Amino acid sequence: MAETIKVGIIGYGNLGRGAELAIKQQRDMELVAVFSRRGKVNTFDEHIPSYHIDEVEKFTDKIDVMILCGGSATDLPEQTPHFSTLFNTVDSYDTHAKIPEHFAAVNEAAEKAGKVSVISVGWDPGLFSINRVMAEAVLAEGNTYTFWGKGLSQGHSDAVRRVEGVKNGVQYTLPSEAAMDRVRNGENPNLATAEKHKRECYVVLEDGASADEVAHTIKTMPNYFDEYETEVHFITEEELLRDHSAMPHGGFVIHSGKTGAGSNQIVEFSLKLDSNPEFTASVLVAYARAAHRLSQEGQVGAKTVYDIGPGYIHPDSPADLRKKYL
Amino acid sequence: MAETIKVGIIGYGNLGRGAELAIKQQRDMELVAVFSRRGKVNTFDEHIPSYHIDEVEKFTDKIDVMILCGGSATDLPEQTPHFSTLFNTVDSYDTHAKIPEHFAAVNEAAEKAGKVSVISVGWDPGLFSINRVMAEAVLAEGNTYTFWGKGLSQGHSDAVRRVEGVKNGVQYTLPSEAAMDRVRNGENPNLATAEKHKRECYVVLEDGASADEVAHTIKTMPNYFDEYETEVHFITEEELLRDHSAMPHGGFVIHSGKTGAGSNQIVEFSLKLDSNPEFTASVLVAYARAAHRLSQEGQVGAKTVYDIGPGYIHPDSPADLRKKYL
Repeated sequence: MAETIKVGIIGYGNLGRGAELAIKQQRDMELVAVFSRRGKVNTFDEHIPSYHIDEVEKFTDKIDVMILCGGSATDLPEQTPHFSTLFNTVDSYDTHAKIPEHFAAVNEAAEKAGKVSVISVGWDPGLFSINRVMAEAVLAEGNTYTFWGKGLSQGHSDAVRRVEGVKNGVQYTLPSEAAMDRVRNGENPNLATAEKHKRECYVVLEDGASADEVAHTIKTMPNYFDEYETEVHFITEEELLRDHSAMPHGGFVIHSGKTGAGSNQIVEFSLKLDSNPEFTASVLVAYARAAHRLSQEGQVGAKTVYDIGPGYIHPDSPADLRKKYL
Repeated sequence: MAETIKVGIIGYGNLGRGAELAIKQQRDMELVAVFSRRGKVNTFDEHIPSYHIDEVEKFTDKIDVMILCGGSATDLPEQTPHFSTLFNTVDSYDTHAKIPEHFAAVNEAAEKAGKVSVISVGWDPGLFSINRVMAEAVLAEGNTYTFWGKGLSQGHSDAVRRVEGVKNGVQYTLPSEAAMDRVRNGENPNLATAEKHKRECYVVLEDGASADEVAHTIKTMPNYFDEYETEVHFITEEELLRDHSAMPHGGFVIHSGKTGAGSNQIVEFSLKLDSNPEFTASVLVAYARAAHRLSQEGQVGAKTVYDIGPGYIHPDSPADLRKKYL
């Protein structure tokens, strides 16, 4: 086996914690240290040292690749260009509209420093993005549909909790089975986002609040719910804690194309995730391996999942992959 | 848009014909000529010239990449190393056990000639192989299951037609829905090939033959059917021609993994293909684009789908892919 890849984590929320657990599952990786703005944190493995983020520069010769686990809103736009001057990095930047801008900033920093920085890794952007591009490359005549869910939506859960009479609650986005079936049948329908998805709310009422009124307020809430088929279920606080504390997510990328004299060809990729942050972290960790290998090959600059051969993320050698998996 | 990629096809059976049609769907490609052992052939587009395979050497400066559409049994083991001395090539070599040997022979020829040769492209090997490796890289603790079908099986159809009393017939391999559900539920079952698949036969009887006897002979045929759940349907010759002349295929790659403290994470990729050869040809054509681009970057030697970034197979530039698809 090749030498162990030495990894660091910056940011220790749900994603950083998932990354610690994912690194432990990889046979060729070792977590050197965790860095956060809080300084010392409680890692799952008590032998993993943790430091204040300001101490990261002391580790430039001890870490092969740094996994950046901050948020896309304010952390990563600053952190990724900055830390790419010191380390090979991987991030999960997911503000779709600003990806070109982020790529340019990171590319400039990484090229100057001679580092590799893989940006926008995860499942969307990430694995879903790969499937959209590959399906469309193969089946040039066709349409790609992305459905999300079943997944916990933080923004919509917050909206539910702001409704008067609601003590607590969560919201799940679900793909519409009827819409998916139309796509799978090769109908190539035009579907608005609201036609592709349903919304399901689980709500704990305040004492004395009216279930009918709360349900009506939620279902008619502009932008969030009014255009969607929405179900509201009322449950107890105990049920909410017991059944709705996890962070499931997932979705479907379905491409419906035609070849030859009209043959329907359907390509489908889907994820059913019990834990969204643990899965996203697992993708980041696999691409950390690719960042390290590309750097060892002498490559520099920002990369995305589109630039990286799938074999680069797997621990086996190219010869073993050809023999065992092709 | 970049310059048009000039493509040739060697071999004009179902796969070569599919390649002609697929090239026509691509906005950045042009089919220069078709070559076959038969010499002149009837191409779909009468303006495409066709030549005897011996004339191929006259085209070394007219073709950017050659798509090899011969069979894996005898054609490709000779043709791919040979034509890789003259052209960048793509083939669909699918004898899984001999891929390392094929890779070595092609790599030597292509390296010497300064060409790029992408081998074993299609959906299995090909897109399925990518999904097996990526899912396992991300979810190191887990199992990958490949299910085939619904698909027409040539070998099993031949076996059915050899049974006494059978005038004509076809056989479809189907994935077992029950087995797939167990995998999707995260049960991580041990499944033999026979437990993962069912077989469905459509049979036209000879005059006076006994349906019961034919069904019994098929269902108890060693190796082919005896270990499988097998259905035998009797139809007329007209129904056979009308309903069973297409070459559908497809299948599922399902990876069931665990992260963190036991979260189930399911990754699934599937294909539902009306025409197996047309789809395989479409994958070859997309990877022909990658072979050309890699060659332009100065790369040489044999490559597989594991070595090639997904963006290389799509006509858009990396910047456009990041903006539009990531």
